[in-house]
Amino acid sequence: MRQAGRYMAEYRALRERHSLLELCRSPELATEVTLQPVRAIEVDAAILFSDLLLPLEPMGLPFDFVRGEGPAIERPLRSAADVDRLAVFEPREALGYVLDAIRLVRREIDGRVPLIGFGGAPFTLASYAIEGGSSKSYAVTKALMYGEPKTWHRLCEKFAAVMADYLTAQIEAGAQAVQLFDSWVGHLGADDYREFVLPHTRRIFDALRGLGVPAIHFGVGTSTILADMREAGGDVIGADWRIPLDEAWALVGDDRGIQGNLDPTLLLGPLSRMRAAAADVLARAGGRPGHVFNLGHGILPSTPVEHVQALARFVHQQSRER
Amino acid sequence: MRQAGRYMAEYRALRERHSLLELCRSPELATEVTLQPVRAIEVDAAILFSDLLLPLEPMGLPFDFVRGEGPAIERPLRSAADVDRLAVFEPREALGYVLDAIRLVRREIDGRVPLIGFGGAPFTLASYAIEGGSSKSYAVTKALMYGEPKTWHRLCEKFAAVMADYLTAQIEAGAQAVQLFDSWVGHLGADDYREFVLPHTRRIFDALRGLGVPAIHFGVGTSTILADMREAGGDVIGADWRIPLDEAWALVGDDRGIQGNLDPTLLLGPLSRMRAAAADVLARAGGRPGHVFNLGHGILPSTPVEHVQALARFVHQQSRER
Repeated sequence: MRQAGRYMAEYRALRERHSLLELCRSPELATEVTLQPVRAIEVDAAILFSDLLLPLEPMGLPFDFVRGEGPAIERPLRSAADVDRLAVFEPREALGYVLDAIRLVRREIDGRVPLIGFGGAPFTLASYAIEGGSSKSYAVTKALMYGEPKTWHRLCEKFAAVMADYLTAQIEAGAQAVQLFDSWVGHLGADDYREFVLPHTRRIFDALRGLGVPAIHFGVGTSTILADMREAGGDVIGADWRIPLDEAWALVGDDRGIQGNLDPTLLLGPLSRMRAAAADVLARAGGRPGHVFNLGHGILPSTPVEHVQALARFVHQQSRER
Repeated sequence: MRQAGRYMAEYRALRERHSLLELCRSPELATEVTLQPVRAIEVDAAILFSDLLLPLEPMGLPFDFVRGEGPAIERPLRSAADVDRLAVFEPREALGYVLDAIRLVRREIDGRVPLIGFGGAPFTLASYAIEGGSSKSYAVTKALMYGEPKTWHRLCEKFAAVMADYLTAQIEAGAQAVQLFDSWVGHLGADDYREFVLPHTRRIFDALRGLGVPAIHFGVGTSTILADMREAGGDVIGADWRIPLDEAWALVGDDRGIQGNLDPTLLLGPLSRMRAAAADVLARAGGRPGHVFNLGHGILPSTPVEHVQALARFVHQQSRER
């Protein structure tokens, strides 16, 4: 999960002077923000500060962030012709600033913790491109998916090609793991997931295999499609708090790792409850290697930074005691 | 699920002249809107047109609907003192207009189809009261739940008392079934559900038992808590499209009915896919009594009314052929 964010004073200070996209597009600023949580919190890895939507612009879908409303795509995709016009670009040129940020983070971090690169999965990217921003029902996305399946598949093939290349470039630039975010795919049932999503997501993980770094496959509200996500790929599958970690792991399979799954709202406090819930996650993981302790979704802006620090300390201490 | 709505031209015409709350508060208008889908679509039951939030005002939490943004509570609940101030009211007085609507609908409908009354469950009502409106993360709700569990339980006790009385009054007025909407409870994990929600929801279903009408217990994204919702109560448990109907029914148990579970976005078309998915739901129900065919959530405003008509016809035809 993105570790930096509005819950940190250092981040808010930077955001007063720079837009979110400015932070993403400047290798120096992206590096600074990536390192903020590494300095403040005892995390075991850094995750590149970036945005899922960055590949949309070089594909021909410019967007911006509207304060308080999230991303807004200027001209959302609505037709086969819109999809045909999308460019498959060379990430080493168009998103070179992301790769520069990866190189700079690696230099600055100097081996203390590994760096995780990241990108968006086809369904989640398509949902932003089609809806034009966030959505509650994903009605426009699903209408295109059901109504024009050929257009949908062509769109997802383009996203899969772009993301496979982009994540490969991130690994070449120094990312020591990658996380693929299919944040909103939990809005689909299993049949739809298998028909409309799985083949495309699989293409990305297949392309990453053999590059020598672990790949994490993440989604929210995916309790009923975890086994299908496993089939799509990923060395580690993410789960959220809606399913107990041991049950999620049983679905994901012993030969894969699992990431998760504390409810981020528990970090609002009280600490005693947060720690009890974290201990439960660790107990369900049973000390088995392959568990990546994490939240089930991103840190909420209203979270006290001391609570995040306390959680990292607690998880380390518990893990040492095992 | 609410059957009337913006997808119907007759409803939109009324909404041009009346606010949502005006429709709810006028027995004549609520009756007219309740009957619109009964006339237009071959449904097997009518569901009272009303709003989940109506009980908030007589409890001391006035609200309104902001165009395009949903409900807005004037002074959201934030403290124990706020909860203490909430009134437990007499629904036969304060919400008499809802009961009048039920009597009027029953008269107008003249036995053609039964009428379902409805209300909100404690978690969902509390989330609106605390967040002040809709939410993505339910962070403020959960912060109060985790941070001030006594206040949370007192709040939910009040909601449970109010809703038990209100639904009882609806049944006395003529509702031939009731549906309790815990629309947003799927944001909780099972442990939280059992600790913070189950006892309160159970109190409502316990109060309704013996009144001689079936009670439906509905939520969205509840795949991992269906067995707990069963324990809380309800003769019929609702499931959404994230879980195959037969798997949901196995969790809910053979001694309960099940309602669901077509993805409402399938009604956007094409009809062939909608029918195939509806046939799959019916096949998974296996013709067993106790299946209430329904959508997994409300009808989307962009749905063509002819598609809803086609779905009702298809389900009837398929059910007759079994």
